[in-house]
Parts: sequence; structure tokens; C-alpha cells
Amino acid sequence: MLETPLPKSIATVCLSGSLPDKMEAAASAGFQGVEIFEQDLLTHDGPPEGIRAMAEDLGLAITIFQPFRDFEAMPEPQRRRNMDRAERKFDVMQALGTDLVLVCSNVQPAAMDDPARAAADLREMAERAAARGLRVGYEALAWGRHVNRWRQAWDIVRRADHRALGLILDSFHTLSLGDTLDGLAGEVPGDRIAFVQLADAPRLSMDVLSWSRHFRDFPGQGELPIAEFAREVLRAGYRGPLSLEVFNDEFRAAPARRIARDGHRSLIWLDSVLAGPSVPASPLPAPPVLGGVEFLEFAVDEAKGRELGGFLSNLGFRLAGQHRSKSVELWRQGGVNLVLNSEPDSAAAGHFELHGASVCATALRVDDATRALSRAEALLCSTWRERLGEGERPIPAVRAPDGTLIYLVEPGAEGRSIWESDFHLLPGAAEAPGALERVDHVAHALAQGQMEGFVLFHRAVFGLEPAPPMDLPDPQGLVQSRAMADPSGRVRMPLNVSESRQTATGRFVSAIAGAGVHHVAFSTPDAAAFVAGRAAPMLTIPGNYYEDLAARFGLDDRLLADLERGHLLYDRDARGGEFVHAYTVSFEDRFFFEVVERRAGYADYGAANAGVRMAAQARARPWLPAPRD
Amino acid sequence: MLETPLPKSIATVCLSGSLPDKMEAAASAGFQGVEIFEQDLLTHDGPPEGIRAMAEDLGLAITIFQPFRDFEAMPEPQRRRNMDRAERKFDVMQALGTDLVLVCSNVQPAAMDDPARAAADLREMAERAAARGLRVGYEALAWGRHVNRWRQAWDIVRRADHRALGLILDSFHTLSLGDTLDGLAGEVPGDRIAFVQLADAPRLSMDVLSWSRHFRDFPGQGELPIAEFAREVLRAGYRGPLSLEVFNDEFRAAPARRIARDGHRSLIWLDSVLAGPSVPASPLPAPPVLGGVEFLEFAVDEAKGRELGGFLSNLGFRLAGQHRSKSVELWRQGGVNLVLNSEPDSAAAGHFELHGASVCATALRVDDATRALSRAEALLCSTWRERLGEGERPIPAVRAPDGTLIYLVEPGAEGRSIWESDFHLLPGAAEAPGALERVDHVAHALAQGQMEGFVLFHRAVFGLEPAPPMDLPDPQGLVQSRAMADPSGRVRMPLNVSESRQTATGRFVSAIAGAGVHHVAFSTPDAAAFVAGRAAPMLTIPGNYYEDLAARFGLDDRLLADLERGHLLYDRDARGGEFVHAYTVSFEDRFFFEVVERRAGYADYGAANAGVRMAAQARARPWLPAPRD
Repeated sequence: MLETPLPKSIATVCLSGSLPDKMEAAASAGFQGVEIFEQDLLTHDGPPEGIRAMAEDLGLAITIFQPFRDFEAMPEPQRRRNMDRAERKFDVMQALGTDLVLVCSNVQPAAMDDPARAAADLREMAERAAARGLRVGYEALAWGRHVNRWRQAWDIVRRADHRALGLILDSFHTLSLGDTLDGLAGEVPGDRIAFVQLADAPRLSMDVLSWSRHFRDFPGQGELPIAEFAREVLRAGYRGPLSLEVFNDEFRAAPARRIARDGHRSLIWLDSVLAGPSVPASPLPAPPVLGGVEFLEFAVDEAKGRELGGFLSNLGFRLAGQHRSKSVELWRQGGVNLVLNSEPDSAAAGHFELHGASVCATALRVDDATRALSRAEALLCSTWRERLGEGERPIPAVRAPDGTLIYLVEPGAEGRSIWESDFHLLPGAAEAPGALERVDHVAHALAQGQMEGFVLFHRAVFGLEPAPPMDLPDPQGLVQSRAMADPSGRVRMPLNVSESRQTATGRFVSAIAGAGVHHVAFSTPDAAAFVAGRAAPMLTIPGNYYEDLAARFGLDDRLLADLERGHLLYDRDARGGEFVHAYTVSFEDRFFFEVVERRAGYADYGAANAGVRMAAQARARPWLPAPRD
Repeated sequence: MLETPLPKSIATVCLSGSLPDKMEAAASAGFQGVEIFEQDLLTHDGPPEGIRAMAEDLGLAITIFQPFRDFEAMPEPQRRRNMDRAERKFDVMQALGTDLVLVCSNVQPAAMDDPARAAADLREMAERAAARGLRVGYEALAWGRHVNRWRQAWDIVRRADHRALGLILDSFHTLSLGDTLDGLAGEVPGDRIAFVQLADAPRLSMDVLSWSRHFRDFPGQGELPIAEFAREVLRAGYRGPLSLEVFNDEFRAAPARRIARDGHRSLIWLDSVLAGPSVPASPLPAPPVLGGVEFLEFAVDEAKGRELGGFLSNLGFRLAGQHRSKSVELWRQGGVNLVLNSEPDSAAAGHFELHGASVCATALRVDDATRALSRAEALLCSTWRERLGEGERPIPAVRAPDGTLIYLVEPGAEGRSIWESDFHLLPGAAEAPGALERVDHVAHALAQGQMEGFVLFHRAVFGLEPAPPMDLPDPQGLVQSRAMADPSGRVRMPLNVSESRQTATGRFVSAIAGAGVHHVAFSTPDAAAFVAGRAAPMLTIPGNYYEDLAARFGLDDRLLADLERGHLLYDRDARGGEFVHAYTVSFEDRFFFEVVERRAGYADYGAANAGVRMAAQARARPWLPAPRD
């Protein structure tokens, strides 16, 4: 669609810290410009000229000065005072070295509902701006008193008819009202669009002002149709910056560099969505086609490795191979591979030291590892390669936001599998019998403030799509959950976060001092047979749950008795899909496992049972190995 | 209005933990009954009969079993299935030993808009209930598909016309829609009201379902007219329990005993509001008439006491007295008394050990300390008396939710002031000159989840009224603020809380490992003269702030220059009231002081300047004493 992407800019209000902190973070994340949010300048102890010099040093354009509020269509004497106020702000802009100011539509009760008067006021402001070589952009705030739609703002800009006055578009203000940019391209010439601001947001039903001030997020993190919005802007011929303006309580409290990098990643991703995967000008390699989880790797030491091996044996896994050069074991059951890595002086050992026994890597089957790696690098991700022994296969990896690795495995790229090339496989291991088919999903527990970053990472790098957020009731507080999955459903990844440190999610984050894999679910064609045939310590589900199941679903007594005997949970969706699942107790109050049986296309995760599961976990004692003689 | 208050009950969903945890917390807080929330029973690993026995042991009635959802006006076959479901739940109720079930109005898309059918279904359910000696209550959910107002629910109950069916009222479902109970008393006989649930909430403009599920709070903690609601219920002749049903994310994550005690306190307070302070039957002594802050006491050790004395000297305070029996100093300026307590083995010493140098007590002037103390005790507060030396005056105290003491001082109750009785006053100290008039406000920094408890405590015990919440922008995140003040404005107490630990509020809470007094503001008739005449280390305000002040308020250049010279902040309210104020830097990155000048009835706190202040604090180095030779 475009040969080169539009310049990328970010508003200082998105980031935490002082104005210099914010500018430094924006530059280091690779932005070309910043919007200076007025409050950030007011609280800065130094003249605007210093900020101008700093921006030049950092290679940042100051794309706009914002916001100038409550200007147009005021009665006298406020009208006259507002012109004086504008002149004072023009002084500041000239000192800053930016030529554009954002005027947002008036919210004052005293403002008049008079587009002609608004146009006359903005024309006078533009005339004064032009005398100094400056420009004015006018934007409809979603909660403007009389002007809250872009068409109204455009009508006023058109009437004012001054070359130094343009229209400013903001995705949040348009999309939050359910409006679109349909018709923009025919009506508004591209060079009359002075500036474009982008923000996504979760779909919340609340007043638009509070929604805007607290819950905006970066494109791809929320649920608004940002790509459609940006596409219309480009169709109209706009060629200025795309600039992020995101008010988010958690972003404001997070390290500025991390948030700035997430912001830049969101715009790079948006470029690729706008270009479309099949368009040659696409600035990003296409996302990988995912074939499922090839293996999960646990960081352990020798003792924990033995204990975890014992736990897995009870679940029906068998030791299937030993790494050729490292202290690494392969445990296998059916289509599921688990790797236990206790090699000293490895990445896994570093992980173990920081976090204790936990998942340190996930391997995804991809169609083209090289392309997937290039995409990740273009999206500002760091990548990684492990040192190799003789003849071992290199597996490239991307570092996830929790610091764990995501290996990119091409199944069948060569004759030999990674298992054959890197492991001494035990006789018969390739045909290890077992009722597990594959890794069904890998659930992560995140610390507060990490959800948006994880959603964007997995969406942008791997093409996973997020489901709407939902709340799960833990006895010690709510857990917010958002499931991500690739279009084929082969890779599924629920993300959970909780304010409370006492919930199952919060306890895990405390235990491993970070985010990570909280549980791994394996699919099986027959969950009841699986639990009946295994010695694993399963989570005990109370009888009251089955009483209620009977009342809710009218299940027959035999099925009910089977479920209760196996401590199996049950769910049914609106289309008749059924879900039967059971959990192990936790390994040392850390991660745990789940077996799931999906019938008739059931596509969810049994959220209705999460409360019962979490209450049972709060009661259950974690698994500990039997004492040795 | 009533001779004895109605029984007090709380829903298990208000509290964290397992069902036995919740019941134990409710009993220990003094509730007479609990509502059993069904999910809490489902997740409990034990038969309902055990819960019944436990409730009996704890002296708790099980007031109701709830909720039974999506029952009425469904097409077949769901209708028949719902009757079966009801029978199964009746079994559970009989095992629990409760006779009342809450049916909330149907939210299913399949539900029919047919009050006659709804009435017929509820009549059949009531008939089946009556056959077992049980009763059914019907409640309008605010987001019910067809029934969401109490009048609709009453119409259906009236049509059903069965003695085992009554109306259930919930303050949130009524008030959140802007509805009232006007007309209830004439239309609904008291004995047809089966149950009443109470919840308050902050005024949020969001969808009522999310508002209800996450942000309810206890009566007196929010902004809804709960007292009016309860008054109408009583006028109608209802004499059953008043039961709290509050879904709140923070309450669910907090210790159950604390939340249960807050809940009970809210109902005791509500009783007194319903009775009215002048009605003899009022179950609570009237709140104290407040006369301002008599003194603030800082816990220090000898070294910190010297340093803080030096800091106060620079602000113009003078050492005015020495305690007769303890290592306690009085520092005074005009009408402001500050006490520095370094007495070993005292309550202050214990506070110092836990929290370091910080305010450990606030003394309020009250009209009747004995009455105030009785009120606090009736409101489940703990009280305290310091050991006394010979001839010293006893000052009773109430313990605040942050563990500090609130002394109750009767000025002029006897001839001698507490200063004359307990202190050796230095010559001339009584007339210490100074430009400070009084303590204007005492701002607290709270940890997350503490706001509601503090609001209720100060409202119930001291009659302070909370202002609506507002957000203040710190460079490291948002700070939520709620100001409390007594009707005369003599005692003002802004409460601040922040999610981020990096804001000024968050840093303070980390530094003292708890909630506490973050800053103390003193009033002066001339803030500019005050700062000009003092050697105190004031917070430096950047020039850009004054540029913007000029643009916003059109202040004349001389005033502007005066403000800038003194690092004074300025605000003006809509009625022309003006506010001039300045801050000291922090004492050791802990608390700080403010001087304020209120002109023409300005009643706020200069919130517009909070961002500039907090950015300046993030830059400022805290005050440290000059090195000694």
C-alpha cells in the first residue's frame, strides 16, 4: 500500500518519569518523533529551548505540542483571553521548535454550539499561528461539549478555510463512540489531515472520559479496529506521522524504556497489518504457520530433576532419551515431549538460579524458522542461540517478555528430528505408548502490568489472537484471564494476572519471582480413562460441585458418578461441545498439569470451573516426593 | 425509629478465603447471620450439613442461600428443568438449615417478557418450597433481561400471590439505576419483603454489571444514598436482617477478619444514621463536635528528634516545652503544636521501631472525649490509654486503621490545658509569635486496598464526610485521592493511594512500611510573607509552571513574580476563591510540610498543582541535617 511506512511518534504522556526520561526512552526504542504533552513540560525544571536541544541530540522530531484545551466558541471576555493564551503557547512552541499545536474540542459548559463561531475563532488562531510559521490542528474529543465526531471537526476546519489549520484524527475518540472513518478518503484531502494519533483499548462499557484516561493501550493490545482506522487515514492520502497517545495507569507506572519498546513494536506490527501478508511491500516477514508445541523445557538441578521425573512417571510419562552432550533428559508420552535440563552453566541453569524449577523454554513448530526469527528481530525482540555440541542441530530462539526462550523448530526440515540428532533415544521410546495426544495449552501467570505487553508480543511475533478478557474467582481474589490462540488452535496460551498476591496466580508469581508457565494442559481422547490408569496425584474436587453439575446440566447419574470418581470437571458450550478435564496438584506449589478431553469442537478452557479448581488448589498440599531410604 | 436495630448479616462473597474462613470472620466481627453464596458452597470440600453445624457452633444464622439464577419465564423444556433444579437446591437448603432462597431476575436471551408467566413459575416454585417448609424471595437484578426494577419484581410477586414468596430488595440494584424506594411503604406490606441486601458504591459511569461485580463497597464507603434506601425499607415495616452483599476486588483479596469488621462497622454506623443523632433510641453516642487538630505527635529517637527539631526551626517553630516525666518535646508556632516523642519503651518508641520517624498520633479537639470514646468503642474500634506520670492529664485515644493513635482532647474542659498540666513550658512559649494559624489539613498515604476502610472509619467515628475521588498525576503513576473533612472544615484529611510503588505516595508507604501521615499543611494569612521570612528548604517549582499560570489565569506580572520568587503554587476556584501554597522538601524522603493561604472561602487543596508538586518531589533531594563537626 505504501512504499515506506509513515514516521512513528509517541506522546510523552504514554511513558513514566521526567520529560528527559521519556524522551530518552522514546529515542532508544527507535521512535522518530515525540508529542510533547504540556503537563510534562510544565513540570520540567528547565527552559523549552533545552528540550529542543535534547530532542535534536536524540534525533527526535517534536511532532506536536498538546493539548490546547477549551479554545473555540467561547463568549467574551474568554474569547479574547484565549487568543492571548494561544500567543503565549506559540512562544513556547517556537522555543521548543515544533510548528504544530493540537486544539481539542471545547468541553466547557460556557462553550457555544455555533460551528460558524468555532470556525471563525480557529481561523483567527490559525492566522496568528501562520504569522509565526506555525500551524494548528483541531481534534474532536469524544466528550467534547458540542463537537465530538470527526465530521463535525472537519466541517469546522473546512469552514475556517485557512492553510495553517488542519484536522487531527485520534483512533480512540472515533472508535470509542462506535464511529468509523468511512467516507474520510472522499471528503478530506490528505494534506488537510494535520496529524493522526493512535490508541487501542479493551472494550469496556464505561463513560468514555474515564475509559480514555485510564485504559487506553497500544495498537494490537486492545479490542478496537485500529487497523481499519489507519487504513482509512492512508486511503485519504495522509502522509504525516502515526503517533501513539495512550493514557494507561499501568504504563505510567512501568519502566519507560519497556513501554516505549512495546509502543514501537505495536506500530511496526500495524505497518505489517496495513500492508497485508501477501503484499510485497510488507515491511515484515509473514508470521510463522504454527504446528503446535514440539516440547517444553524445564530448568531443574539434579535433585529437582529426579523429583520432577518421578512426578511425570506417575502421570504416565517415560524417560525416552538422554542428550548427547548435556545433562538433559527427554520425557515423552504419546505426542508430548518434556525436556528436563539440569546442565550446569547453561541458560537453563541461569533460569533455575533465578526462578527455581520452572519452564525455561517452549518450542513451537513453525513452517520456516529463519523467517520467524527475522520477523521477531524486526519487531524489536531479542533472539538467542545455545552453544552446540558436535553434530547437534541449531535451534534459533526468541526471548519472550518473561525472559524464557521460545525455540523455533521446523519439523521435517531435514530427515532427522531434533530428537534423533541431539539425543540418545532409548529403545522403543519413539513408540512410547500413552493416551496423550499433544500439548493442548500452556497457561502463563503474569505479574500486574504485564498483560498488554504479553498480548502484543504473541500477537505480533506469532500471530496468536487474543480472546476477550474474563474474570476468574480465586478464593483470595479475582484473576483476570485472556486466552490467546493461533487461527488453527494448535497453539493456545491463556494469560492470567491477579492484583492479589494470595491467589493461585499471585502465589506462583511470588514463588518464581516473575512471570512464567503456570500450568500445561495435555489433550487426551478419554480423560476418564487417563486418570483411571495413572498414579498421578490429582486435585480433589468436592462433592458439592457434582451436586450442582447435576442441577445445571441434567447429566445422567452414571456420567456424574464417573466424573466424581475421577475428580473430573465438566463444561458444555452453547453448541453442545463438551469439555472434560482434571488437574494434578502442584509440583512444589509451583506449576501443575491438566489433562483435557475436547468433544464436538469445544474451543474454550472450562472457565466456569476455574473457581472450583482454584479453591481446591488453595486447600491442596503440593506434591512432594516420597522420602528416600 | 426502631427500638432495636435489625439483625445484621453478611454474604460470604464479601470475604476472602474458604467458606469456613469466611464464616469464622463473620462471627468474630459480631454478625448474627451469613448469606451463603452458592459458589462458596460448591468449592467447599464437605457436606452442607457440616456447614450447618459450624454455623450453629459460631452462633450464626444462615439467613439465605443465593443466588438461584435464570429461573422464571423460560420456554419448555428449560422450564421443567428449572423446576428440577429448584428441587435439588431445596435439598441443599434443607441440609444447610436455611429456609430462604434468593431468585434473581432472569438474564437469559431466551427468557420471555411475560410477567404473568414469571408469576406462575414463581408460584409453582413457592408451592414446592412451601411443601418443605421453605420460602422463595424474588429480586430484580439491575441488568435483568426483562425485570430490573423493584416495582416490576413486586408486580410479579403480587400476581403470584403465594405466602411462601416474597420480594427481595438490594440497594445497589435500585440505586445504581437512579431509582429510589419512593412509594414502597404504601405499596408493599412489610411482611412481604423477604430480605434486604445492602451495598454502597462509588459513582462510576460504567456498565452496571461490571460496576456491581467489582466496585461495590460497604454502606458509608461509597456515594450512593444508602441511608435513604434503608429508611424506606423500615418505613414499609420490614423487620428482617439487613445483609451486606458486596462484590469488591480488593475486599476479596484482603484478610477476611478486617473486611468483616469493616462490614459490621458500616451497619452499626447505618443504624445511627437511621436513628438520627437527636432521636433518643439512637444506638450510638453522637459523633464529636470537632474543634481542629490540637497537636501532631512524631515518633523519633534522640538523633532523629534533633534533626526534626532543626527542620522545624528552619520553618519558624520554637521549642516551647519539655514533658514533665518523659523525653517528649513540644514545638510550637502560632496555633500549631507539634510533639516530638523519643521516650524509650513508650507507644511512640514501638511505632518508631516499626516505621521510623513518622507521625504516631494526632490529637483532635472534641466537645466530649468520653462520648467520642464510647462511640468509637461501639463502632468496634480499639482504644488506648498511655501510662501517666504524677498529676498528668489522661488523654483517651482511638486507634486508627493505620495503627496510629487519635487522641481526644477537650480544650478548656478544666482550667489548665494539657500543655500546662503535662509540660514544663518555656518562658514566653505560650505567646510564641508566628505566622501559622492552625493545622489546615493532614494528608495520609495509604497502601492499596485501604481507602474504603479509612473512609468508613473517619466517617463513622468522627463524622468526617468524604469528597468524590479524584486522580492526581505523579510522574511515576496515578495517585487516587479522596479528601475528608468535618462539616465546619476544622479537620481536613486528604487520603491518597497509588497502585504504583514509585509515586510519592507509593514511596512513602514503602519507606514507612505502612500507611501514615504523608504531609501536614499549616494555614497562614500570608504565604508569600511566610516563605520569605523562613529559612526552610522549600520545594523548587519550575519556571514553565508560571508561564502556564499566566496563560491560564491572566495574573498580573507582579503577582506572578512574587509567586515564582517564593516557589508558591496558585489556584482559583469557580467562585473566585484563591489558594496560595508552598511545600517543603521531604524530611528524609518521608513526610513533608505545606503552608497554605486560603482566600475568599477557597475550600479545596489545589489539586491542579499536584502534578507539578509531585514532579518536583521526584527531582528534589530530601532534607538532611548539616554535618556536625
